[in-house]
Amino acid sequence: MRILVDAMGGDNAPFAIVEGAIAARKQIEHEIILIGREDVVLPAMKKHKAKDIEFVDATEVITNDEAPVKAVRSKKDSSIVKGLNMLKNGEADVFLSAGSTGALLAGGLFILGRVQGIDRPSLAAIYPVIGSSPSLLIDAGANTECKPNNLLEFATMGSIYMEKVMGLENPRVGLLNNGAEENKGTTLTKAAHELLAKSSLNFVGNVEARYLQDGVCDVIVSDGFTGNAVLKVTEGMGLMILRELKRRFTKNGMTKMGALFLSKELKNIKVELDYTEYGGAPILGVKGALLKMHGSADEVAVEKTILKAIPYVENSVVETIQNSTIELEEILQS
Amino acid sequence: MRILVDAMGGDNAPFAIVEGAIAARKQIEHEIILIGREDVVLPAMKKHKAKDIEFVDATEVITNDEAPVKAVRSKKDSSIVKGLNMLKNGEADVFLSAGSTGALLAGGLFILGRVQGIDRPSLAAIYPVIGSSPSLLIDAGANTECKPNNLLEFATMGSIYMEKVMGLENPRVGLLNNGAEENKGTTLTKAAHELLAKSSLNFVGNVEARYLQDGVCDVIVSDGFTGNAVLKVTEGMGLMILRELKRRFTKNGMTKMGALFLSKELKNIKVELDYTEYGGAPILGVKGALLKMHGSADEVAVEKTILKAIPYVENSVVETIQNSTIELEEILQS
Repeated sequence: MRILVDAMGGDNAPFAIVEGAIAARKQIEHEIILIGREDVVLPAMKKHKAKDIEFVDATEVITNDEAPVKAVRSKKDSSIVKGLNMLKNGEADVFLSAGSTGALLAGGLFILGRVQGIDRPSLAAIYPVIGSSPSLLIDAGANTECKPNNLLEFATMGSIYMEKVMGLENPRVGLLNNGAEENKGTTLTKAAHELLAKSSLNFVGNVEARYLQDGVCDVIVSDGFTGNAVLKVTEGMGLMILRELKRRFTKNGMTKMGALFLSKELKNIKVELDYTEYGGAPILGVKGALLKMHGSADEVAVEKTILKAIPYVENSVVETIQNSTIELEEILQS
Repeated sequence: MRILVDAMGGDNAPFAIVEGAIAARKQIEHEIILIGREDVVLPAMKKHKAKDIEFVDATEVITNDEAPVKAVRSKKDSSIVKGLNMLKNGEADVFLSAGSTGALLAGGLFILGRVQGIDRPSLAAIYPVIGSSPSLLIDAGANTECKPNNLLEFATMGSIYMEKVMGLENPRVGLLNNGAEENKGTTLTKAAHELLAKSSLNFVGNVEARYLQDGVCDVIVSDGFTGNAVLKVTEGMGLMILRELKRRFTKNGMTKMGALFLSKELKNIKVELDYTEYGGAPILGVKGALLKMHGSADEVAVEKTILKAIPYVENSVVETIQNSTIELEEILQS
């Protein structure tokens, strides 16, 4: 397997990417290829004594500030565009990037193309659940306005990802809604509820945002606008609480002493609340294995995402999504 | 001023309501009237030795499980319907209830009626911000599907509430969106952004859910579906983190010792994260001063909400909203 990693994307590039790649490479026999600007990436690889890691030069960089569609069209030799082309041409089996989400989505659509039968490819995100294994939130912001069939697609693709990559049997699919009763919600969620109930998914019904932290489902289905808001407020709160704990616990000698007694527990809480500890999230519904890493991913997150890329490819997520579209069509026509 | 309080609503009724009313009464000279079933409320008042508190009998109760519209139409002698009628008839100046939100909204519309020029009355909610004063989130769930003019109304009413009741000068109004740039978002948020920019409000632009905890604005404007999700996930996370801290800090002798050193700080964190500590939230845009208390409000929350009812009435929130509709109309026609 050839795992291609964008060495230019994210707040901590190139060093966190290079370090994460090195850490992952030590654990696996698959090829890892870094792509990026020679003058930036090679020195970082040299500094960290990268071994058994390949490099591909890409002279341009797409930043988060650029208009995604325009950037993808004009910067043909950027790490993102060149990387996606390598994925398309079979020069890589999976592509990982912490770069511009917009450019990855636009590039995914233009270069890889949609899986036939999928109307809207989607950005999924790992949704942290305190004291429990994370859920998958889909859509996390790629599709701000959705139709009911899009939510059915998200549910199906998310369920496949959680089964094939995260190893969950029969993942529980919940529809994010403002009440548990099936007649609750907007025109969109009511219609999506009907479609989901007809599917062969393990649909557990509506889930309220209030209970997401109780781990009531493995796949949280939402339009991208609400999904983005819920994900971001969760991340923002986690970081804010960490800051607040730190501020309060370092106030004086007594609080510092208390924190010392609790240091192990505090460290574990940090891991639970700090979303950057989680690995990447897939862009599902495009013809290729594409993983988006968090913009603030550190070397541990990069390492974890690279390791997750393996079951993504080996367990044929993209092909399984392709096969699922037959059922999707049947549901929509029933 | 006559402050009417529903003694039947919420998880902790009637005792938390009675205790909260007693605590508030000691601090103010205004009349407090409890409304509810005689056989339930009078014993509670007797038990807590309620003094200088009036009582009005209402023989029926509307529960959270009932269909709101049907309940409001059929249960004329419920504390909610009778209370709203007393508010309408001037027998009370403000009405507070921790009962069914749906019934309060439906009853508010049917019995009090909309302020002329307001298309959609709205449920606002206090949005807790860790380490800072709370914001107001509007709409918090009353209007799942909105038009751009509704968001302008919410912004205006929320701004008036924060100024008149919370004492903020020129409250900062932010539009909840999936990006800071003004061209970001859905058809709805883009159009709402244009309207807000034309208004005389202190509009600070789009705010991302990620930054709500940084207290970037005083009034968070949203459609009710997204607003509800953001509020509920914030509340759910707060409670979950409190549970997790408690679980981890009571593990063994050493962690308990640490927690002892930190007891004051932990108590303060609890206050910040526990949304039930906050007072009630207004239902704005109806012809009457109506405050919804949280379903799990305890006696402290009841007390706080009663105290907040005073500036609500004294500073003429309802009349100010009525006066604001002239500008709203001008903006929509421009």
